[in-house]
Amino acid sequence: MAKYNAYGQFHLRLPDASYPIYINRQGLYCPEVLHELIHSPQLLIITNKTIAPLYLSVVASAFSEKQCDTLVLEDGEQYKNLSSLQTIFECLITHGHHRDTTIVALGGGVIGDIAGFAAATYQRGVKFVQIPTTLLAQVDSSIGGKTAINHAQGKNIIGSFYQPQAVYIDVNTLTTLPAREFRAGLGEIIKYGLLVGGVFLDELRQLLARGINPQTPELPKLIEQCCRIKASFVESDEKEQGSRALLNLGHTFAHALESYTQYTRWLHGEAVAIGLYCASLLSYEAGFAAADLVELVAEMLQNAELNYKIPQDINLSTLRDLMSLDKKVQAQRLRFILLKKPGDCFIAEHIREQELNQVLLAAVEGE
Amino acid sequence: MAKYNAYGQFHLRLPDASYPIYINRQGLYCPEVLHELIHSPQLLIITNKTIAPLYLSVVASAFSEKQCDTLVLEDGEQYKNLSSLQTIFECLITHGHHRDTTIVALGGGVIGDIAGFAAATYQRGVKFVQIPTTLLAQVDSSIGGKTAINHAQGKNIIGSFYQPQAVYIDVNTLTTLPAREFRAGLGEIIKYGLLVGGVFLDELRQLLARGINPQTPELPKLIEQCCRIKASFVESDEKEQGSRALLNLGHTFAHALESYTQYTRWLHGEAVAIGLYCASLLSYEAGFAAADLVELVAEMLQNAELNYKIPQDINLSTLRDLMSLDKKVQAQRLRFILLKKPGDCFIAEHIREQELNQVLLAAVEGE
Repeated sequence: MAKYNAYGQFHLRLPDASYPIYINRQGLYCPEVLHELIHSPQLLIITNKTIAPLYLSVVASAFSEKQCDTLVLEDGEQYKNLSSLQTIFECLITHGHHRDTTIVALGGGVIGDIAGFAAATYQRGVKFVQIPTTLLAQVDSSIGGKTAINHAQGKNIIGSFYQPQAVYIDVNTLTTLPAREFRAGLGEIIKYGLLVGGVFLDELRQLLARGINPQTPELPKLIEQCCRIKASFVESDEKEQGSRALLNLGHTFAHALESYTQYTRWLHGEAVAIGLYCASLLSYEAGFAAADLVELVAEMLQNAELNYKIPQDINLSTLRDLMSLDKKVQAQRLRFILLKKPGDCFIAEHIREQELNQVLLAAVEGE
Repeated sequence: MAKYNAYGQFHLRLPDASYPIYINRQGLYCPEVLHELIHSPQLLIITNKTIAPLYLSVVASAFSEKQCDTLVLEDGEQYKNLSSLQTIFECLITHGHHRDTTIVALGGGVIGDIAGFAAATYQRGVKFVQIPTTLLAQVDSSIGGKTAINHAQGKNIIGSFYQPQAVYIDVNTLTTLPAREFRAGLGEIIKYGLLVGGVFLDELRQLLARGINPQTPELPKLIEQCCRIKASFVESDEKEQGSRALLNLGHTFAHALESYTQYTRWLHGEAVAIGLYCASLLSYEAGFAAADLVELVAEMLQNAELNYKIPQDINLSTLRDLMSLDKKVQAQRLRFILLKKPGDCFIAEHIREQELNQVLLAAVEGE
């Protein structure tokens, strides 16, 4: 078995909370390091049916001297709902978990979001540790304290801002991740490239052109860079009243696509890939960006083997209506995150209906 | 109709939030004052079937130029649950409420708690205004940002800390409050008397001896004093990591009684009355307080026409078990708020099982 290897560790610092983000290989097999994450006498590890057989027992074994309960949920975005949340509360109550318990999320973004929301609301808030096991969760959703569940009519429509005590990233868990999920995570990484531009984008382009997989030596460094980018956005605007919204590049489109198909057709990162392409097209159509931005985005998504076109069977007017319920809507106006060029994003408030419709049409497969 | 009369206004100040608390008579009939509370283009007023016919249309009429939606829930603590919360989310989504909407709670503690929790979690938090219409909500639950729903096995077991934008108290709404509900509110007021002691307690004792009703001239001042006491506890410890827990005097007993009977038998303030008596008995039994404390508590509760004994049909060992799930439990130990004397409360961590059982027995009716 590969040896434990700590690549990086840094703190995300907020006025009311500061927590460490660990990036390592084989960290799940280090009980002494894992053990340091949790100081409470009780914990509940929440995971799903895919992750449980792989990593649940090794993680739980690090806490054998505590009251360590486990809960295994179904795997999939469609289970990130009120009913799963209720299952978590039942479990916490049945096992007598008190206000000083810790909830551990062991899994991808779905597990992290729902376990985090349970932690935010059980007894008005208990401690919470993220152990993300997908690329998307490792570079994005486990960091920054956004927790939520979905509603049939809107992604992440119910949730809260609630920061974890720690984020513990074992990059080696990606070796058991299905290739499709790994690719989906690249969607969010490409988003960071577009957000910050510069050397990070150049290196990312080269890596994508060569191909990235879980064994790529540069992967831990890439994940750490993404975590630091995410952390810096969160540090400057925890509750998303301004600049943090830029992290939603591509997401107005992505969330509408996901809720259109009831979260069953695309992984979140796959929907983000289409969303990034639409956002670049809209940036171009609205006259903010040059045409080569669209080409750059398409090239990176293609190298990541991500589809970035809207399938022909999607009804564009239904999709358009779903965008109106997105959380980024304010004062009845759709807001988009657009690009002038890589590293230069902004919130666009006054997108004309006509331009939007044109972009949706142009983004359809075969157009 | 009586004229608008503003008695008092002060701000509750926290590091991240500061909001006004208004105390007046006939404020609900002042559209120009009401109107100032809400700046968003949309609002949802949440109330119940008892309050709706009395005050919903007058409040809604102050916002006729906005998108003002209304939702009328069933009346009663047993409806402060996940199912009512879901009804609220459905309503917000169906009417297209965005992140910049405001939720208004028009009603007692149940409406305030559940509407506040909906505000805390819809789209990760929207604005929220409290218009409390019961004595208990006016002196206690509307202030300080505790929001929650109940679970069959535990009161307020799911919730969050989420501060309102404003609390707007029209004391005249108490003229339509059933006498039983008014008396229940006196339970929390007596709690404040015990917490702070001194002149406030002396004046309260005299008022209670003479009898308090919604027309009592001293009532607005009494409500304002209670609001200020509550606010000062919240200001010094918003998230209840220390001194705010003292506000839970009597509540470990009260919550267990309420969840024992599935929230159907006692109003919260009535359960608190029994809880205050039990807490004073336990303070005496454990050797912290003199016997005259118990007499003082009994006298005030009696003058408020509140029953303070545990009915004979309550199984004390079941009640004891329910206390173990209370949120004030830490590290497997029951914690009680006890009194040395009025104005001198503390958190007791090491109460012996035997003393607790003795107190429960001694508090039973007819003992």
